[in-house]
This record gives sequence, C-alpha cells and structure tokens, in this order.
Amino acid sequence: MPALGKVYLIGAGPGAQDLITLRGARLLAQADVVLHDALVTDEMLALCPQAEKILVGKRYGQLSTAQQFINKQLVDYAGKVPLVVRLKGGDPMLFGRADEELRALEEAGIEVEVVPGITTALAAAAATKQPLTKRGVARSVAFFTSSTAPEHSDHHAIPDTDTLVQYMGGREATATAARMLAQGRRPDTPVVVIENCSRSDQRIRRLTLGSLAHGLGPAHGPVLVMLGDAMKMRSHQAPDIAAAVDAIQQRA
Amino acid sequence: MPALGKVYLIGAGPGAQDLITLRGARLLAQADVVLHDALVTDEMLALCPQAEKILVGKRYGQLSTAQQFINKQLVDYAGKVPLVVRLKGGDPMLFGRADEELRALEEAGIEVEVVPGITTALAAAAATKQPLTKRGVARSVAFFTSSTAPEHSDHHAIPDTDTLVQYMGGREATATAARMLAQGRRPDTPVVVIENCSRSDQRIRRLTLGSLAHGLGPAHGPVLVMLGDAMKMRSHQAPDIAAAVDAIQQRA
Repeated sequence: MPALGKVYLIGAGPGAQDLITLRGARLLAQADVVLHDALVTDEMLALCPQAEKILVGKRYGQLSTAQQFINKQLVDYAGKVPLVVRLKGGDPMLFGRADEELRALEEAGIEVEVVPGITTALAAAAATKQPLTKRGVARSVAFFTSSTAPEHSDHHAIPDTDTLVQYMGGREATATAARMLAQGRRPDTPVVVIENCSRSDQRIRRLTLGSLAHGLGPAHGPVLVMLGDAMKMRSHQAPDIAAAVDAIQQRA
Repeated sequence: MPALGKVYLIGAGPGAQDLITLRGARLLAQADVVLHDALVTDEMLALCPQAEKILVGKRYGQLSTAQQFINKQLVDYAGKVPLVVRLKGGDPMLFGRADEELRALEEAGIEVEVVPGITTALAAAAATKQPLTKRGVARSVAFFTSSTAPEHSDHHAIPDTDTLVQYMGGREATATAARMLAQGRRPDTPVVVIENCSRSDQRIRRLTLGSLAHGLGPAHGPVLVMLGDAMKMRSHQAPDIAAAVDAIQQRA
C-alpha cells in the first residue's frame, strides 16, 4: 500500500491571480490534483498547468450531499497521489466548510495543512480604499452570512459591531438591511456593495442603508455588502474607477 | 518639478515570508523606499534588498504624533522617488491606521493603491486548523480590539458574534474575558491564544474563557485571542505542534 498523500486546503483569495499568497502559488505549482469550486477563477487555475483539475461543489442546493462527495474525493485522491490541493475562493477558514473537510481527512488518517487566503472583505476594502476600522469611528468589524435555512431565521443574527460585512449578500442583503433599520441603524449609514471583487468585471456601488432596504437590483456575480460609518468617503477620495466605468457603460 | 511617485499600502501578512501575496511581493521587489513598522519581519524585508528601508511607528505610546510623522514621510518620499511602499503587518485596512495615511496622501494629490494582506486571524485559524465559522455552530465572526483610552471604556464594545477574535489581546484579554463572562458567555467556551503567529517562535495555547479570566500569563510577542464554540477541537484533530513543542520546552 503506498504512503498516503498530503492535502492542502488553500485559500485562493478573491479571484485575481496575484492575490494568492506565495505559499499557495508554490503549492499549486507542485500539486498533482487540484479540487476547486466554481468561485475559483481560470487565471488562478493557470498557476497549476501540471495538475489534474477537478471542479467540485455546487453553489446552490443540496449542499450537504455535495460536501460529502467532496470529502470522499479528497480522501480518495490522497490515497493515490502525493500532493492534493483543495482550492477555495477567499479564505478556507471563513465560510469555507473547512470543518467538514478537515474532519473527514483526519478521520481517514490523512495529513492536512491549511494555507490562508485573502478573504473577500479585505480585498473589497483595498479595492474601494475604504478601511474596515477607523480610529474614533469603527474599532470592530463582523463578517457574517445570512441563510434562508429555517433554523437560521432568528432575528438576533445581525452582529452589533461598528462595521458589518455580509458575505453572499446578493439575495439576502435587502431583507437584512430592513432588519438593521428596525434594530436602530441610521438610514443614512453608508453602504458599499462589491460584485466580482478583484476581477476584471468588478463593480462597486455606493448607497445608504435606507436605499439598500428598498432593493439592490440585479447582481452578476458574488456580492459582498460592507456597511457602517467607516464606509463614508473621504473628502479628497477619488471616485471608484470601476463604479465610474459602470456609470459610463450604463449611460452608453 | 518631477512627477509625483505612487504609494502602495501593502499588507505583509502575519510574518512568514511566503504569506504575502504575489502582488505584494512583486511591488516590494520594485520599491524605491519601504516604510515599515516594527511588526514586519526581517524575512519579509528580505524581499526588497534593493529598497531603502525605513522603520516607522511606535508600538506603544504617543501614537498620534508618530502617525502624523509617518504621514509626512509618505508624502515627502512620494515627491522624491517613483515607487513608495508602506508595508504593514497583517492587512492595512484592519486595525492599520490606513484612514489617516490615505487621507494625507489624497490631500497631497498623491496616487495611492492598497494591496490586501493575510490578517492575523486567518493565519491563526490556518495554523491551528480551527475554522472561524462552522456549519450549525458559528456563522458570524467579529474582529475587535480593546483600548485603554478613556473614550473606549464603554461596556458595550464586545461584539455579540458567534466567534470573537481579539487583536492585540495581550494586555486586555483577561479583562475582556471577565466582561464576557458577566455578559453571559459560558466559562467552558473554548479559547485559542496565538503568539507570534506564523513565525518560527509561534506559540499556541488552548484554554477556556473561565481560565482566561484568571490571567493569560506572560506573552512574548503580538497576541491574538480567538474564542467561541468553533474553537472546540475535533475528535481526531492532531495536537498543535507548536503547543506540543512549547510543552516539551517547558518540561526541559
């Protein structure tokens, strides 16, 4: 029986090829097999031309079944090749279902290591030049996600931090905004919405909590919503280039 | 008058040389001047042998004066050389005083770009293999810092998220833990404390909220405290290597 391979859970970051870590890129270039989800971009997969690349996961529906199959694939490949990479958009330890994969690998006796990635909130803060914390204004930030699952429908799930970042906010952001207003957040609280962060089709929209509660309009990719007084633009801050381009395209 | 240079605010990540992004490493290798703080490691600075390296900032005391001087240095260097890097530990947009630096540069008409970095919480989650979110257990996480400044002594500042990460927790973690207990968090809530995350002298300690409230003991570098039911170890999870080494060293 051959020695078992090692599995690396690697964060790919938000999408741009050069926003992965040096460690992540080096391991990708050495990988025998790369199991990646749909959020991982083609330019990122270009970092592992030698590897067998396998698209796993589903973005919507039947998540638990899909997860069990991913776990099984990770264990199976580790029995066949020395270096298996599980490549995830963003960071593996934040909304990445890492617990299930780590558990399955550990129970099978397979060595596993985690390589962090740039989570989308940090890439979005950089792209918009909007710090998540600000002296005297915001010294706490929460990352959260909303779920339509019945067990998550409680109304206490919106954190009370100064800055709030809602992941996968496309479908839920409007309802969440209404709940925030009901909980006492000001309607003029600044909001920044980013689609396809760091990619060529990145789109930035600036609005207020009050307007967000009336609807976000169509989105064309993963949506991140950032909210709080730290999102207020500075007096000499240049307008977001992507937002400007978007406005021009809408006019044309 | 020569054209003004461009300034990049770059996140160095937690310390290990290969946990900076490809983009950050490429810009470091092209920089004329690198202004860095004391948290940036020597191995990271080895990525820019060609650059003039300037240590700025103070870790304790007189922060605002030091910050104004850093702002002035950034503006001054951008008037002299084409590519100025401001290198910060972790991510620049999270507890990084980026707002002040962006504001100063924008007011001086200097072009600035932000490159995200791996914030310590994500590196700590990876190093301990302890996801910050977990299906059915934790779907929100807050990053916060405590301050001894009088205006921050309110007792509502501890976020209510499932997982909590306290940055710069060395001096404050014990008092914060006592307040969390008073606010109803369970004494057996699992806690992970990381010092010098990702560096050769990384140290991991696992305790409970109840024991943390009685004191953390001496720390020898930047301390991050992670707390919540997501920090519970898995049944087949290997003990943390650094923690094991630490235990051996204490025994010897």
